[in-house]
Amino acid sequence: MNELTHFDAEGASRMVDVAAKPVTQRVATASGSVQMQPQTLAMIRGGTSAKGDVLEVARLAAIMAAKQTSGLIPLCHQVPLDAVEVSFAFPDDLHVAITATARATARTGVEMEALVAVSVAGLTIYDMCKAVDRAMVVERVQLEAKSGGRSGNFRREP
Amino acid sequence: MNELTHFDAEGASRMVDVAAKPVTQRVATASGSVQMQPQTLAMIRGGTSAKGDVLEVARLAAIMAAKQTSGLIPLCHQVPLDAVEVSFAFPDDLHVAITATARATARTGVEMEALVAVSVAGLTIYDMCKAVDRAMVVERVQLEAKSGGRSGNFRREP
Amino acid sequence: MNELTHFDAEGASRMVDVAAKPVTQRVATASGSVQMQPQTLAMIRGGTSAKGDVLEVARLAAIMAAKQTSGLIPLCHQVPLDAVEVSFAFPDDLHVAITATARATARTGVEMEALVAVSVAGLTIYDMCKAVDRAMVVERVQLEAKSGGRSGNFRREP
Amino acid sequence: MNELTHFDAEGASRMVDVAAKPVTQRVATASGSVQMQPQTLAMIRGGTSAKGDVLEVARLAAIMAAKQTSGLIPLCHQVPLDAVEVSFAFPDDLHVAITATARATARTGVEMEALVAVSVAGLTIYDMCKAVDRAMVVERVQLEAKSGGRSGNFRREP
Amino acid sequence: MNELTHFDAEGASRMVDVAAKPVTQRVATASGSVQMQPQTLAMIRGGTSAKGDVLEVARLAAIMAAKQTSGLIPLCHQVPLDAVEVSFAFPDDLHVAITATARATARTGVEMEALVAVSVAGLTIYDMCKAVDRAMVVERVQLEAKSGGRSGNFRREP
Amino acid sequence: MNELTHFDAEGASRMVDVAAKPVTQRVATASGSVQMQPQTLAMIRGGTSAKGDVLEVARLAAIMAAKQTSGLIPLCHQVPLDAVEVSFAFPDDLHVAITATARATARTGVEMEALVAVSVAGLTIYDMCKAVDRAMVVERVQLEAKSGGRSGNFRREP
Repeated sequence: MNELTHFDAEGASRMVDVAAKPVTQRVATASGSVQMQPQTLAMIRGGTSAKGDVLEVARLAAIMAAKQTSGLIPLCHQVPLDAVEVSFAFPDDLHVAITATARATARTGVEMEALVAVSVAGLTIYDMCKAVDRAMVVERVQLEAKSGGRSGNFRREP
Repeated sequence: MNELTHFDAEGASRMVDVAAKPVTQRVATASGSVQMQPQTLAMIRGGTSAKGDVLEVARLAAIMAAKQTSGLIPLCHQVPLDAVEVSFAFPDDLHVAITATARATARTGVEMEALVAVSVAGLTIYDMCKAVDRAMVVERVQLEAKSGGRSGNFRREP
Repeated sequence: MNELTHFDAEGASRMVDVAAKPVTQRVATASGSVQMQPQTLAMIRGGTSAKGDVLEVARLAAIMAAKQTSGLIPLCHQVPLDAVEVSFAFPDDLHVAITATARATARTGVEMEALVAVSVAGLTIYDMCKAVDRAMVVERVQLEAKSGGRSGNFRREP
Repeated sequence: MNELTHFDAEGASRMVDVAAKPVTQRVATASGSVQMQPQTLAMIRGGTSAKGDVLEVARLAAIMAAKQTSGLIPLCHQVPLDAVEVSFAFPDDLHVAITATARATARTGVEMEALVAVSVAGLTIYDMCKAVDRAMVVERVQLEAKSGGRSGNFRREP
Repeated sequence: MNELTHFDAEGASRMVDVAAKPVTQRVATASGSVQMQPQTLAMIRGGTSAKGDVLEVARLAAIMAAKQTSGLIPLCHQVPLDAVEVSFAFPDDLHVAITATARATARTGVEMEALVAVSVAGLTIYDMCKAVDRAMVVERVQLEAKSGGRSGNFRREP
Repeated sequence: MNELTHFDAEGASRMVDVAAKPVTQRVATASGSVQMQPQTLAMIRGGTSAKGDVLEVARLAAIMAAKQTSGLIPLCHQVPLDAVEVSFAFPDDLHVAITATARATARTGVEMEALVAVSVAGLTIYDMCKAVDRAMVVERVQLEAKSGGRSGNFRREP
């Protein structure tokens, strides 16, 4: 019980066998945020196609990274995704909030795909703005909810 | 002033021209942590080759991800790295602290490589342990220091 | 109507959700050509294993590129392909004509896989011959036909 | 003379040895266009961040693809790029014109990187708009100019 | 009969069409070994988390490489794997024996995935130890068994 | 002494720092072979462009794989290659012998690139011919020679 399933009885890492699991609809949502100076946030919020849209670059980076998840996380299965959506919000004048949802029809969940999308969105915002604010922080990358699969649903408590 | 250099005057994204910059020694260090249940941390700390070593998997994932940085962050240059090192510490019974240092002899910095390494180390710890603790959080991924290059050195203030 | 489905109502890019679409047999055929000097075409046509076979290199590049489509086209789904075939013809003494067909059993079409295969075949021919003919042109890369899927069949009109 | 340098004397393909070539500043510019229905072009031109910006997606895809060139074109060298820029123009009401410039400080040229960028920009425009105009054509992908390197400069004649 | 199915009637390479094949459980096991000096083997066997565990690095490299098989072997299909396991043994004081098993629910077999895993495990052992034993040899990489699929089962004869 | 340089004093894996090493010309040659049935070898030797050329496919796969080495071998540096050449010979009626040479102007050697090329050439031959000879064996993948770099030259003794 409480075992780390990515290791076998001898502690050898492995890609867990999912062949016996049913193919079901999987959804996972992750969140995170980037903390920055108010002036940096103002620059990002001012983004229009005429001035350059930081968040659209971050969104595309996030979607493309979600598709690379199994090449980044060593023991992740390759899961062809049905959908990836990434959205941004401005909860205050210091943060860009990031939410990503991944979906698949698969034998295994897509939590890592959603978390990779949020992380890469945050890192891309950092990259785009680091010339003006090198101290930005990617904060609280976490799973919000997931459904589908034998381990049941999960919803983060507020 | 305060311009986002990844956009041109019309707001079009671009990979910034670094041809005129000198080749210098570049070093960047990033940090972050993973918050988890005390029992999860105890399982990780108990890691030995006999039981499975979560942190060694995370370390390798981080090093391999650093090499993929230009494929993840859209406007990053391809920088062949001279070195990548990743270390872990246990500041309390709820967190694994992650530090990554990247080095290159290049025309551009390696901040993103260090930040990608920390992020992927954190996400891999999440993946390895999510069966026992789905609420873990990757926290405060940030640049600690960088040197080399025209924009000068940076050291995060405590 | 006439909407660009890769954007949501606010204009944010997204990977369209295909979870509700049925898995069906998908086939797409694309074409294109490379225009060149007659002497260049003669060199290619003379290709034998003893002299070096430009078209076989281009064919393999095309097949391998088709498998990388979701890493190249930002909002493409990852579609494991059932088959890829690439063929060449010589309609006149100035052109190599390229045709590629991709097949999959999937929730979404494989037009982009066929178009990527044709494009990379053309670019590889360019690369192999550019030392002798730098002015070659990759021409008219286009979808010829596709079948399978809710949007119905397509066949280019002559 | 007029040899295809990517083959050896027996016709075996090879990555040509560039060790003896000097490291110089390399620049290459390629162009191409996408032909479409006037209504499709109108939709693209209307692109703003509120409605979704097809060309910004295509631009990022092009930049990221340029970095993948050596993974697409079998005998291309791996060239870390100093810069990539991609621009679009509307010469008439049926075409989006694409121009891409790649730069590197290297032993070999970056023509293929510029051509890959143009091709993937064109294919991404196709992908984004194919739901409304499946007959679009990626046209005349070609080298416009290159400089640097022993083979001398090239500029396409009008 | 005795045909090489990866070529068509004209000798053109192709990714064989598997659309008509049934989806079945596929398993393949491959083996190989690395021959080395007895002192090198002693160093590897002494591997603990305190000294560095060569075989755990090799195991992870093997699992990650199995997922990249279709990007390495030109005409391989993209097969999302259900499981990959890699194990090591010490049959004598000169060899590390490697065994890898890959599983998938697919229209085509996973022999290549198992063989890639074994090869990359062997090459990674070489890389980790080459500073002390440059003459190591990766030996006898071969299929041990496969099941699932129309071509029937295979078990290597002793 | 006899240390495994890919681990630090605590046994943590790392990408060794090569920043202080001089940039020099690096060359490495590796070899290996594929053992098969005489009829399989006869089919391969009969390869012409009309019947399908197994060895040309294997050669291209090898060259492309050499460029992916740092994505396969966890602690390998990213080394842009100056040249890759792959050749085949038939020492008897049971074996295809494979030789690969990689070159770079770099701070670190290219042994792994040459070994990856040989391995992937062998595995591709296996893949192309496995429908007729599933028992083929990739044999004796080993370094033949290397030069350049502080650790001196190496030449395998006969």
